Amino acid sequence: MTAWIAGIGATEFSMASHRSELRLAVEAVLAALADAGIAPEAVDGLVTLSADGSPEIEVARAIGADRLTFTGRAHYGGADSCATVRLAAMAVDTGAAEVVVCYRAFNERSGDRYGQGLAGLPAVPTAEAAQFGWSLPFGLVNAAGWMGLFARRYLHEYGATSADFGRVTVAARAYAATNPAARFYRRPITLADHQRSRWVVEPLRLLDCCLESDGAVAVVVTGRARAADGPAPPVAIRAAAQGAGGNQHLMAGHYIDRPLDFPELTVTSGQLWAQAAIGPDDIQVAILYDHFTPMVLAQLEGYGFCPPGQAGAFVAAGEIGPGGSLPVNPHGGQLGEAYLHGMNGINEAVRQVRGSAVNQVANVEHVFVGTPPGGPTSGLILAPA
Amino acid sequence: MTAWIAGIGATEFSMASHRSELRLAVEAVLAALADAGIAPEAVDGLVTLSADGSPEIEVARAIGADRLTFTGRAHYGGADSCATVRLAAMAVDTGAAEVVVCYRAFNERSGDRYGQGLAGLPAVPTAEAAQFGWSLPFGLVNAAGWMGLFARRYLHEYGATSADFGRVTVAARAYAATNPAARFYRRPITLADHQRSRWVVEPLRLLDCCLESDGAVAVVVTGRARAADGPAPPVAIRAAAQGAGGNQHLMAGHYIDRPLDFPELTVTSGQLWAQAAIGPDDIQVAILYDHFTPMVLAQLEGYGFCPPGQAGAFVAAGEIGPGGSLPVNPHGGQLGEAYLHGMNGINEAVRQVRGSAVNQVANVEHVFVGTPPGGPTSGLILAPA
Repeated sequence: MTAWIAGIGATEFSMASHRSELRLAVEAVLAALADAGIAPEAVDGLVTLSADGSPEIEVARAIGADRLTFTGRAHYGGADSCATVRLAAMAVDTGAAEVVVCYRAFNERSGDRYGQGLAGLPAVPTAEAAQFGWSLPFGLVNAAGWMGLFARRYLHEYGATSADFGRVTVAARAYAATNPAARFYRRPITLADHQRSRWVVEPLRLLDCCLESDGAVAVVVTGRARAADGPAPPVAIRAAAQGAGGNQHLMAGHYIDRPLDFPELTVTSGQLWAQAAIGPDDIQVAILYDHFTPMVLAQLEGYGFCPPGQAGAFVAAGEIGPGGSLPVNPHGGQLGEAYLHGMNGINEAVRQVRGSAVNQVANVEHVFVGTPPGGPTSGLILAPA
Repeated sequence: MTAWIAGIGATEFSMASHRSELRLAVEAVLAALADAGIAPEAVDGLVTLSADGSPEIEVARAIGADRLTFTGRAHYGGADSCATVRLAAMAVDTGAAEVVVCYRAFNERSGDRYGQGLAGLPAVPTAEAAQFGWSLPFGLVNAAGWMGLFARRYLHEYGATSADFGRVTVAARAYAATNPAARFYRRPITLADHQRSRWVVEPLRLLDCCLESDGAVAVVVTGRARAADGPAPPVAIRAAAQGAGGNQHLMAGHYIDRPLDFPELTVTSGQLWAQAAIGPDDIQVAILYDHFTPMVLAQLEGYGFCPPGQAGAFVAAGEIGPGGSLPVNPHGGQLGEAYLHGMNGINEAVRQVRGSAVNQVANVEHVFVGTPPGGPTSGLILAPA
């Protein structure tokens, strides 16, 4: 695609923002535009997730953008975080718009906490509601439950242990400890801390779960000339893809023959490797969606960084942590920095390409960004322009 | 854009479908694929409106599509109906997917009736909900109220009358009367019928309002080779655009300096005319969004078919009806065929280009499809391939 990332922005990440989601969105969008050196009036495209409560036109009015020629949404929550950037890139590539800002803003901790799940919501006669009808009556009311089923299967299938999950969060917290923007700045943990943490949904402990968070993140996508014109180095979108397999459910894709054989990962990564004409060995940093630790293991395997069942050993060998062969989420991820539907990971990917990350990896040529299985996925490969 | 429409499909339109929205969606999608001569397994992209209750992955599973590489949504309801086709065209154009089906399905009459409005919905702290907070307490609870304000202004500004609105619906019903798929098949009306009909929201009478309907519509967008391969003539997407101006609200854009000076119409049509390198005089058929009759007058003017304030006279001269110089909605529109968030109008545009419409206009070279002001808009220009 002929589109580049010119700017990134975010609010602080917290447990209580004390302001509206729209205001958070606008702060992040303005920060990203300032980072890109682009005036808000130049924005002619806006993209977000369909779950976002701040419509494109409300953000446009608040920033003073008077002429939009592209708006669009991706539906599948954090799993579509990379799809927002892809939609923006498609808009730039086809001339639908020239300056497109992707954003995601929520008071997910102080407002509508996802961890409280779907129980109590009104029953509406739609396919989306009906899907949850298969599992809600059995107590699978939130993402920890849906992902917990995959986690249990992972333990069973590969002989993995809770410690294999725990080492993912230990690595995330090691990175977060040196990231002032992270909610767990200066708060590293040990594997023993993880093992002592309470069950949320067995086999997921509290420290296997990401941080419910308030905040907003934004990314500016534009053409080469504008991106090159900004104060920061432009970042190339080498590849952008979405992927879903057959018989897919939203976060509850348990109805496939082999529960850990996630086509949604290979459909996406197959496109990414083909578009960028590289493979997993060419990646210096991976941003993997860490809402729950076991899903990082599933992504390491499904995206091709490890053979099936080997991610636990890979993590135990220190490969994803500081100084490892494949640093994963050097900002601390959603386990250590904040849960922002994965959009903060895209910002980190941009910083790693620019060379401006707080935990900068040396000699970054390609950063991989992926989202979790269990439903449709999306991904990006970013590189220096 | 290098994308073509290869197939269209729809369910019957009714007041009570007696089946689920997902089933309606799947019936329309399968009908459109059959019309295109494309196997369901070949579908790798699905697009709908964010309000739709049948997620892309649920439709994919139901039709047996095992590998999706593009899904996406447009947010602004019927005003974004053309944006779904634009998203699909962008996906085909950029190689994100090869066969993309746009769909919209709802039991809007037998299920959640939009006419009942937003009163009674839970108040959530989002910008979208907050917008309605400005008008809901004053009784503006549904689209008839929001559009009624524009209608009142139209009467005031241009000295128009209720009869000017009424002639729009008389024309629509004349077309519907000869369309067996229309809910008002064989039921034409006179202007006197309109004038006798009760107020819904003054100055809107019952016969100024579209039909609350159950049903589904689908459109298949693909590359040239596949489109040319099908049983029906391929239809070229000569232009596709979205547009929003400043200070825009969802269906309630009352907060602009001149309430009938709708930038959302000119931003969209300006792009359409430029992309297709034609002007209003080159259009043989117009599909205009007729949820409420006055908004057809506003579109005739805002899209450039009439000077401001002249649409009433244009309609009174018989120009939009059967045999007129610019037939508008020859399927009967949403006033006469069914209210399907405008998607049935796109199907009619395809039929007019193909030469297969029930009320076929002669020598069709370009069909214009537009959506209503009062919020963001979208549009298409379709032509023989």
